[in-house]
Amino acid sequence: MSMNGARGARERLVVIGGDAAGMSAASQARRLKGPDELEIVAFERGHFTSYSACGIPYWVSGDVPERDRLIARTPEEHRARDIDLRLRTEVTELDLDRGRVRARDVDSGAESWTSYDKLVIATGAQPIRPDLPGMDAPGVHGVQTLDDGQALLDTLARTSGRRAVVVGAGYIGVEMAEAMIKRGYEVTVVNRGREPMATLDPDMGRLVHEAMEGLGITMVNDAEVTALLTGDDGRVRAVATEDAEHPADVVVLGIGVRPETALARAAGLPLGEHGGLLTDRSMRVRGQEEVWAGGDCVEVLDLVSGQQRHIPLGTHANKHGQVIGANVGGGYATFPGVVGTAVSKVCDLEIARTGLREKDAHRVGLRFETVTVESTSRAGYYPDASPMTVKMLAEVRTGRLLGVQIVGREGAGKRVDIAAVALTAGMTVDQMTALDLGYAPPFSPVWDPVLVAARKAAGRIRGTG
Amino acid sequence: MSMNGARGARERLVVIGGDAAGMSAASQARRLKGPDELEIVAFERGHFTSYSACGIPYWVSGDVPERDRLIARTPEEHRARDIDLRLRTEVTELDLDRGRVRARDVDSGAESWTSYDKLVIATGAQPIRPDLPGMDAPGVHGVQTLDDGQALLDTLARTSGRRAVVVGAGYIGVEMAEAMIKRGYEVTVVNRGREPMATLDPDMGRLVHEAMEGLGITMVNDAEVTALLTGDDGRVRAVATEDAEHPADVVVLGIGVRPETALARAAGLPLGEHGGLLTDRSMRVRGQEEVWAGGDCVEVLDLVSGQQRHIPLGTHANKHGQVIGANVGGGYATFPGVVGTAVSKVCDLEIARTGLREKDAHRVGLRFETVTVESTSRAGYYPDASPMTVKMLAEVRTGRLLGVQIVGREGAGKRVDIAAVALTAGMTVDQMTALDLGYAPPFSPVWDPVLVAARKAAGRIRGTG
Repeated sequence: MSMNGARGARERLVVIGGDAAGMSAASQARRLKGPDELEIVAFERGHFTSYSACGIPYWVSGDVPERDRLIARTPEEHRARDIDLRLRTEVTELDLDRGRVRARDVDSGAESWTSYDKLVIATGAQPIRPDLPGMDAPGVHGVQTLDDGQALLDTLARTSGRRAVVVGAGYIGVEMAEAMIKRGYEVTVVNRGREPMATLDPDMGRLVHEAMEGLGITMVNDAEVTALLTGDDGRVRAVATEDAEHPADVVVLGIGVRPETALARAAGLPLGEHGGLLTDRSMRVRGQEEVWAGGDCVEVLDLVSGQQRHIPLGTHANKHGQVIGANVGGGYATFPGVVGTAVSKVCDLEIARTGLREKDAHRVGLRFETVTVESTSRAGYYPDASPMTVKMLAEVRTGRLLGVQIVGREGAGKRVDIAAVALTAGMTVDQMTALDLGYAPPFSPVWDPVLVAARKAAGRIRGTG
Repeated sequence: MSMNGARGARERLVVIGGDAAGMSAASQARRLKGPDELEIVAFERGHFTSYSACGIPYWVSGDVPERDRLIARTPEEHRARDIDLRLRTEVTELDLDRGRVRARDVDSGAESWTSYDKLVIATGAQPIRPDLPGMDAPGVHGVQTLDDGQALLDTLARTSGRRAVVVGAGYIGVEMAEAMIKRGYEVTVVNRGREPMATLDPDMGRLVHEAMEGLGITMVNDAEVTALLTGDDGRVRAVATEDAEHPADVVVLGIGVRPETALARAAGLPLGEHGGLLTDRSMRVRGQEEVWAGGDCVEVLDLVSGQQRHIPLGTHANKHGQVIGANVGGGYATFPGVVGTAVSKVCDLEIARTGLREKDAHRVGLRFETVTVESTSRAGYYPDASPMTVKMLAEVRTGRLLGVQIVGREGAGKRVDIAAVALTAGMTVDQMTALDLGYAPPFSPVWDPVLVAARKAAGRIRGTG
């Protein structure tokens, strides 16, 4: 059944995916064009729209008291703005030649075609699930969606044991370790890497490792999971690695995600080496006139390395959505790329990074110096001044800033923004030493820790460090 | 008596002023040149070196338990690094023609000349003291030096009353208001301006005003002090304005400072319209070959307005000292200027600004749009997400960022650094909307408050806001 018949002169925008990128695009387009000019149809296969997946660990931990707090905008709110939102409706095929998508009602199985004038693909990411025995056993949980979070909470409510194993030690892994600690569990983190937080260099990851052990978390690094072992009741009872078995009453998978691009691949749209859709600066799919893509299903340009990356993060998805919505709505906006900024925490430990790690710089052929400094979040004499470690990479010869990693306590994490802006502006570490940053004893030492690192890096680059 | 006789081939550096700028210069020069190459003589008229005057309010409040915590480097530590430091020795004359300074032992009154090859003027600032009755009465205190701080603490220890009046509502005034609140005083702030914090636009100052009243501080704005009234015992008993008398057991003066440049003026060195020494980019005094100046006695270039300003701040003084020391020591460094960043707090209220206020922009002929947004320090659903107000100025046509002001609670103040770096880089507000800032629910909403302001400003500039 085609829905073309009822349309007049107005155009139809079809959005696939009802979370951050898709619904931001829809909302922004609606802001620019009213329903008389633009019909907007959005398909979402789940039950929810516009929610903060990044907030799930804090809901599980109890910091956020209820699921609905994570929902930025409900289906009803979208519909009230004349967006024809179809929940529990999965798009199963893109027909680019005829400008239409096929969608299936998840509950009834009924299928129909919907034509579009403009299409936004915002299908998000799917969790990586190694093909291991026991992966689907009761007691094993991912935390990608609100439904996942609810399932985990239901399990926790039913489980009498107190041992949790978190598989993976990236952002989701460390945040879920915190969540399970806060719920009173004994937590073991099983990590295939040499140190947790592979988005940091191993020397900085080592600081995270030590701090997590200080929080009472058992860290098992360099460990590949071989199976999830189940008991007689079929529930998970342990995580097995080559060397050991780690008893578990509940297992949380924090292994990461890959772009959800099966539809796009089947339709012949261009994908990058990380499996994400490739777009131009306006977030239009390369080679397409009227197809746009954003959020966790696309690759983005890393402005420091000049290469494409896949960075599933809500803040990017929201920006993509805004850009797409502006362009689809007849305005103009671009997404220039990222510098790779991320921040996280495990209890009171703050972890942040931007730009390139040592291995990234090596890989793209950049020669660099690195420095690492210890400083404090406030003037040393001020109460609660807490230590932080700042690592900085700068290109030899030019002195251009290449990356910053920070591990510390309260006040450490968001300092990465200083470096993120400096990276975006292409500043040298020498230029950074003169930055006029906010100073007062409760906020910073007289030399901000980032400037201490910049001074040392500038000295190293000059060869006088 | 000349001290020239004993010198061989090595040069002599004379430093006037033993606080941040002077001793940073001395230390950095010493790092680059050993005592065989460079003799360093430093004159300081007080008892202390290298201390944090910015920390005095927190010492008075009790947050910092003792005076010596504010001293970054003691006289003994400087002397151990072969710096010939002469405390309680005031320089009374510069003889530029003959390359010498006359110094007087404050205690004995003895005077002598010391010749120099290179001279650093780091004489700091002097507090502004209106010529009013009662200004020198017991119970009236400034807080510029450690000696001032000690005198105030001595008064507080002896005083039975609990009413404090703070004169002035700039950084020192609001910080001292906090200090006196923390010591259990009833605090009245008497302020000549329309709102506190004249470094903000009045609409933002109004938020500070309201928050300070919420803290139990009595705010008296638009009030010129006419006299400090004394009792029969000669001690201060009230602060009089044209309209009222404000009873006071102790009065703290937070009126600000001006450059201490009497010596430089007498020697004919170039001063700017704010009374500060004028230097080139290397911090060398204009027109001089071997005379350098830094810290609170100089004017600096405001990179946003293109005009000279006087900004007495320890963080600038330290940078100046580093730059001077590098140049004097045979290296090379410059101080490009400032963007006017400052941050402060009153109890849990954080106040920050960078760049131009509305009136600054008017004065230098810039046309601009302003926007003000409300956001939160963390994701709205995360515990302790606190509200903050961000005001942003952007130039019409170009969209160039001109200034940012922030008033909020925990996590608000240091966000000004994002804008400080963007200002330094000459970014437009439209460029800022794409900044890749650290995002996670405990650290920021998915759109950082500074980006929310940038988006709104960019929309306003495009005329679609």
